[in-house]
Amino acid sequence: MTPPARSALGGGAEFDRIRRIVAALGERAGAVGDDCVILPEGTGSLVLSTDLSIEGVHFRTDWLSWREIGWRAAGGALSDLAAAGASTVGVLVSLGAPAAAPPEASVDLMRGVGDVTVSVGGVVLGGDLSRAQTWVINVTVVGRAIRPMRRAGARPGDGIWVSGTLGGARAALTSWLAGTPPAEGARRAFANPVPRILLGQRLAESGATAMMDLSDGLGGDAGHLAAASACRMAIDLARLPLHPDAAARGAVFAAQGGEDYELLATLPPGFSEETRVRIATETGVPLTRIGTVEEGRGVAFRHEGKEVTLSGYDHFA
Amino acid sequence: MTPPARSALGGGAEFDRIRRIVAALGERAGAVGDDCVILPEGTGSLVLSTDLSIEGVHFRTDWLSWREIGWRAAGGALSDLAAAGASTVGVLVSLGAPAAAPPEASVDLMRGVGDVTVSVGGVVLGGDLSRAQTWVINVTVVGRAIRPMRRAGARPGDGIWVSGTLGGARAALTSWLAGTPPAEGARRAFANPVPRILLGQRLAESGATAMMDLSDGLGGDAGHLAAASACRMAIDLARLPLHPDAAARGAVFAAQGGEDYELLATLPPGFSEETRVRIATETGVPLTRIGTVEEGRGVAFRHEGKEVTLSGYDHFA
Repeated sequence: MTPPARSALGGGAEFDRIRRIVAALGERAGAVGDDCVILPEGTGSLVLSTDLSIEGVHFRTDWLSWREIGWRAAGGALSDLAAAGASTVGVLVSLGAPAAAPPEASVDLMRGVGDVTVSVGGVVLGGDLSRAQTWVINVTVVGRAIRPMRRAGARPGDGIWVSGTLGGARAALTSWLAGTPPAEGARRAFANPVPRILLGQRLAESGATAMMDLSDGLGGDAGHLAAASACRMAIDLARLPLHPDAAARGAVFAAQGGEDYELLATLPPGFSEETRVRIATETGVPLTRIGTVEEGRGVAFRHEGKEVTLSGYDHFA
Repeated sequence: MTPPARSALGGGAEFDRIRRIVAALGERAGAVGDDCVILPEGTGSLVLSTDLSIEGVHFRTDWLSWREIGWRAAGGALSDLAAAGASTVGVLVSLGAPAAAPPEASVDLMRGVGDVTVSVGGVVLGGDLSRAQTWVINVTVVGRAIRPMRRAGARPGDGIWVSGTLGGARAALTSWLAGTPPAEGARRAFANPVPRILLGQRLAESGATAMMDLSDGLGGDAGHLAAASACRMAIDLARLPLHPDAAARGAVFAAQGGEDYELLATLPPGFSEETRVRIATETGVPLTRIGTVEEGRGVAFRHEGKEVTLSGYDHFA
């Protein structure tokens, strides 16, 4: 019931706005600052998150098919459940459709929502449909977790790990903005992100101390985890697993790319190579150690022997 | 897991669109057709609903204050919990704000969201904040119910009841559209709808057989309850409790006005006058019997000795 301390959120204009809202709400707000809302129930927790996608801000209708727009909006929201180590119950979808849009567009978009939701064990639970000036999709995800993960909890000495590869979605975006079609792998990373639901559950079971998903880019998101955990994240950019279509652009490009929807987790020193191999084999998703949690505050990115400052993507910058 | 039969939703272009989406989703969709999603947990149920409000479609920024816009968006969403007979846990709010809007607008809007949520025992659990071309507010409500109510369940012989008074919100809307400021009571009905959370719980406890909230107007909504319950609703418009500022315009005006957010409930023949008085006294909300459930299908509105056909508000009409 208590609003979080200022340090529980990282920097940026968007977070300044959220802080102002949380301060004004006072006791009308619950604990804000994680990807998900966590409500204890029985022996586990109910996990909820809500995610707004707006045409012209989060997606463009000339880059993606309707089905891909739906997949991506729901995939990004479901990724919050993965970050909490939760399993999927389902999604509630609000769709605002321009009056002039063909009905088939809404249907195809919702097919994409349904496909990604079913791919991680959930169903479309319900929703709301409205007329709108431009396309609006809000996805509320519902999951359950035995041991819900938060951004807070990383301890000095923990290893810092990421799943999959980074920079693919940004590579696609960069191509589109330059007027050239993206490479197929980059396009897929952008259009069809895979929520790491099973991986998130396995990491939670394996003793992960903190977890979040990379929606705004490692450059900004690592700072949020550091702030919530009140520790310092020392990250070696040379260790970053780069998406094949982002490899030529390097680690700084990948670290500042948003919407990879990979997991950033801190794992205790006892996390074994045997466990890593078992989880990577079961989930089909590589896990890479990129640094170590230290005493202190903030993020130290090491790049070519120097410490560099990186930022993430900010909707209000 | 099975999509509802065609008859589970009433008529109208909006519902035709929803039906097409549900058909395309197939097994990717849960049971759609109620105000809320109902998920069994322990001895009760978790109740969820999501509600999209868009500037220029659901509200105008020149009619209401920011705080009222927030109250109304969340109040309408919370009304779905009342319809399910649920208590309030809280709300998740997605806010899309124009980049040029003053930050204070978002803060005041969220104050209104917080005020109405706290007024019915909940908190703002979390949310999402984004840039947008026009204001967008999506509110997902979370509640719990011991005996969750649905639109299905009305039985021939049940009484048909409504809470509060009808037509106030439409009276305000009619004034604004005519370029005159609305009467204060009508304005309040439109700007600050009171979710009937406690009343919904009391009606569920008192054996209500079906329930919904009047968001699109009795003219359309009664048909949805009749369709879901596979029965006929015989309603006498002369019995409609009219909002004082709608009284001069009559029952047909009130029955076709949207967004009153009163409850429409069917109560078994054994529902006593003593119980009615007790509930009305405890909640401060009048309850009026307006008709009887019969064998058959559809809605029979009796008006000045004749049977009339009424419609509700349809976003895609």
